Amino acid sequence: MSDSVTPTSAVVNEALTVMGGGLVGSLLALYLARHGHTVDVFERREDLRRSGLVEARSINLALSDRGWRALEGVGIADAVRQVAIPMHQRIMHDARGQLTAQPYGQHNQAIYSVSRAGLNRTLLDLVEQEPRVRLHFNQQCRRVDLRTRTLELLHTETGVTQTRTYEHLFGTDGAFSAVRGAMQKTERFNFSQHYLDYGYKELTIEAGPAGEWRLEKHALHIWPRGQYMMIALPNLDGSFNCTLFFPYEGPASFSSLQTPEQVRAFFQEVFADALPLMPNLEQEFFENPTSSLVTIRCYPWSMADEVVLLGDASHAIVPFYGQGMNAGFEDCTILDSLLQEFGPDWGAVFREFQQRRKPNTDAMADLAVYNFEEMRDRVADPRFLLQKKIESKISAQYPDQWLPLYSQVTFSHRPYAEALANGQRQEQIMQRLMPLIQTEADYDRPEVQQQVAAEMASR
Amino acid sequence: MSDSVTPTSAVVNEALTVMGGGLVGSLLALYLARHGHTVDVFERREDLRRSGLVEARSINLALSDRGWRALEGVGIADAVRQVAIPMHQRIMHDARGQLTAQPYGQHNQAIYSVSRAGLNRTLLDLVEQEPRVRLHFNQQCRRVDLRTRTLELLHTETGVTQTRTYEHLFGTDGAFSAVRGAMQKTERFNFSQHYLDYGYKELTIEAGPAGEWRLEKHALHIWPRGQYMMIALPNLDGSFNCTLFFPYEGPASFSSLQTPEQVRAFFQEVFADALPLMPNLEQEFFENPTSSLVTIRCYPWSMADEVVLLGDASHAIVPFYGQGMNAGFEDCTILDSLLQEFGPDWGAVFREFQQRRKPNTDAMADLAVYNFEEMRDRVADPRFLLQKKIESKISAQYPDQWLPLYSQVTFSHRPYAEALANGQRQEQIMQRLMPLIQTEADYDRPEVQQQVAAEMASR
Repeated sequence: MSDSVTPTSAVVNEALTVMGGGLVGSLLALYLARHGHTVDVFERREDLRRSGLVEARSINLALSDRGWRALEGVGIADAVRQVAIPMHQRIMHDARGQLTAQPYGQHNQAIYSVSRAGLNRTLLDLVEQEPRVRLHFNQQCRRVDLRTRTLELLHTETGVTQTRTYEHLFGTDGAFSAVRGAMQKTERFNFSQHYLDYGYKELTIEAGPAGEWRLEKHALHIWPRGQYMMIALPNLDGSFNCTLFFPYEGPASFSSLQTPEQVRAFFQEVFADALPLMPNLEQEFFENPTSSLVTIRCYPWSMADEVVLLGDASHAIVPFYGQGMNAGFEDCTILDSLLQEFGPDWGAVFREFQQRRKPNTDAMADLAVYNFEEMRDRVADPRFLLQKKIESKISAQYPDQWLPLYSQVTFSHRPYAEALANGQRQEQIMQRLMPLIQTEADYDRPEVQQQVAAEMASR
Repeated sequence: MSDSVTPTSAVVNEALTVMGGGLVGSLLALYLARHGHTVDVFERREDLRRSGLVEARSINLALSDRGWRALEGVGIADAVRQVAIPMHQRIMHDARGQLTAQPYGQHNQAIYSVSRAGLNRTLLDLVEQEPRVRLHFNQQCRRVDLRTRTLELLHTETGVTQTRTYEHLFGTDGAFSAVRGAMQKTERFNFSQHYLDYGYKELTIEAGPAGEWRLEKHALHIWPRGQYMMIALPNLDGSFNCTLFFPYEGPASFSSLQTPEQVRAFFQEVFADALPLMPNLEQEFFENPTSSLVTIRCYPWSMADEVVLLGDASHAIVPFYGQGMNAGFEDCTILDSLLQEFGPDWGAVFREFQQRRKPNTDAMADLAVYNFEEMRDRVADPRFLLQKKIESKISAQYPDQWLPLYSQVTFSHRPYAEALANGQRQEQIMQRLMPLIQTEADYDRPEVQQQVAAEMASR
């Protein structure tokens, strides 16, 4: 933690308050400091670099282009790349252990598996080297008084409560944001929290005896089973972090698996190839929490020049498109560009930020829910995989006119709402095209080529 | 208030707690008492029969068939009919004061204008005559502890706080329900509050010198102006209760009218025929509050056999279909039928209630928002009015196959979700039919009759 604060030059540089020192809060603090401001960051948890505690939310993250750009903007992408594992493809495991691969993009494109805790530690280390930022841990936000611009902070170790005022408050305190909680009590605040009927549970595929990966390392593994699925992302130590996405209730659900024997029998039946790699399955299944899957939407995101929400605090989404962190990081990129455009006219910056960003995070929330169905069900369908191959061929033939939706979201910086609209138009074209196509080779048949050319001409 | 409580027979009759003594809470208490239960009703406000205070929410209500059925179920429809004014038609006022009428249904059908405060008083009088119900006023619910089934109630006059336990709690405490507030903090509770960008303000068209109505009494008057509108409902004393539905921001909005002169000039321009009937316009405009328009959705509505939400607490809607109160009253009808089906198996009753009712109140919420556009804009369009006349003719010719959507919602007991789905199918038919029709007389042309017959045959 830095105690030496660079004195601010009176006119431009201001003292800013960031509530929440998670991924988005840490990155935001770096951006704000680079604009010359002094930043105080308050984080509820203890310093996770000192605690050695396992993160409650250990789900692995998939960094993609939007996230990388945001990290590059403060010059820390290289440091993060050291602890990231590229995944070039999805590998689907069917019930008999047969594998099918689907590349995520072009040859050199990948999403990157990183550990949430590891990435957060890296960011905190970088923040600490920034003299304009002060980190305060163990600070639980008990109350935000928007009228008097006052925070009530409880130190969770000493039990001491302090009251602090703020000029400009950035709420990066996550899906259950205390800052948003205060805004929810103001007039005409739109808000929704929607839960899926599914929960998730973290499990582990262990490393081999020599620390080797026992599944293909450079892939995101999926066991799609229609109404549920398991996925696995590689860790640096040779293990895979697995997540079971599973209904809370029903014939195959968390409530139907009550004993270690039932869990083992169920995995033997539906995840047979993974089971031998999961020696601690039963213990983990009953010791690890079952976590819920929520989508949060709200509006407005800001109050005058006083408060703004970023990341999960304003737009928490379900994890199925791997865009939650990337969207939060992109918030930082966009806020940065608005600071360049407007300078420290915070009222203008916050207003533009919410107006430009809200339609895009709404679109991303819809895409994320949609992708759950794709991952747990459609990726097991040969016709779906054929369609993806055909789309890839169209994209190669008409690179200026066609980018698959997944690539627009993951490997481009196109606003999410545009990507969604564009993806829907492309899907309609595929619905007209696919009845003509039975195999990959059919793509080269003259009548198919003719139809594709006609569709491209009318776009 | 009744202090003599009929002793309950131990097995079947239970002590029930109703939070909220508004329209739905009062009616619900009557229903529960008729099933033999003892009921305590806690109401935050003072007894409005004694206060003489003007209700904050004085917006007139339109009672229709669903509401009447619920009142009939406890034998109080006749008492309410004494203070209700039937409205057989909409009358649209254009900018030059020209009037156009549109009947709501068949000859003898009407919706009924009642005052919220008057109806609430009538219900409270009837509740008081029911020995099994105890009414408690000035009781502000400060806390609901769902785990210990405990309520903390502050007496707003004495300042005394009491703690009470409950066995079965009915939350009828409105759009900003304290009972729902406690449920919102439980795991996986879906919730949304969505505000329109419009507010509303109550205004008055005064009675004539002899207490006469200065507009057609048996009508709901609308001044549709595209992006906004005013409506007026008749009162018993010869006045009309007007409501201006108006954007908060923009060129014609609450924020654009800042002085009495601006208000008068605006009304002179757009509501010229009403202005002379509104002598206190400027005073009312600046003294009466601007109220917001919210849609509330949530799920689940119940917790085991312990808590259930009814009325606005679980499904507050915007007022444009005149169904808010009717839907809340229908909740009581449906709960009553489930009590007949299941007896006091509260777990089964609450579970069935929420499962059967939720899709219907969701549909009604959508219909209510949709109808705002119809009222403020489409009713001023001659083609729209022609379409309604043609629909009325189809309904007369094919009475078993066609009921206009408005009639399904207002003059039937068909579940709202069915009405919405059915209305959408009918709208598609009208879209195919209307291009053939330029005048009312066209309906009798052979090719139109043929097409109508074909559509009916394929339904």
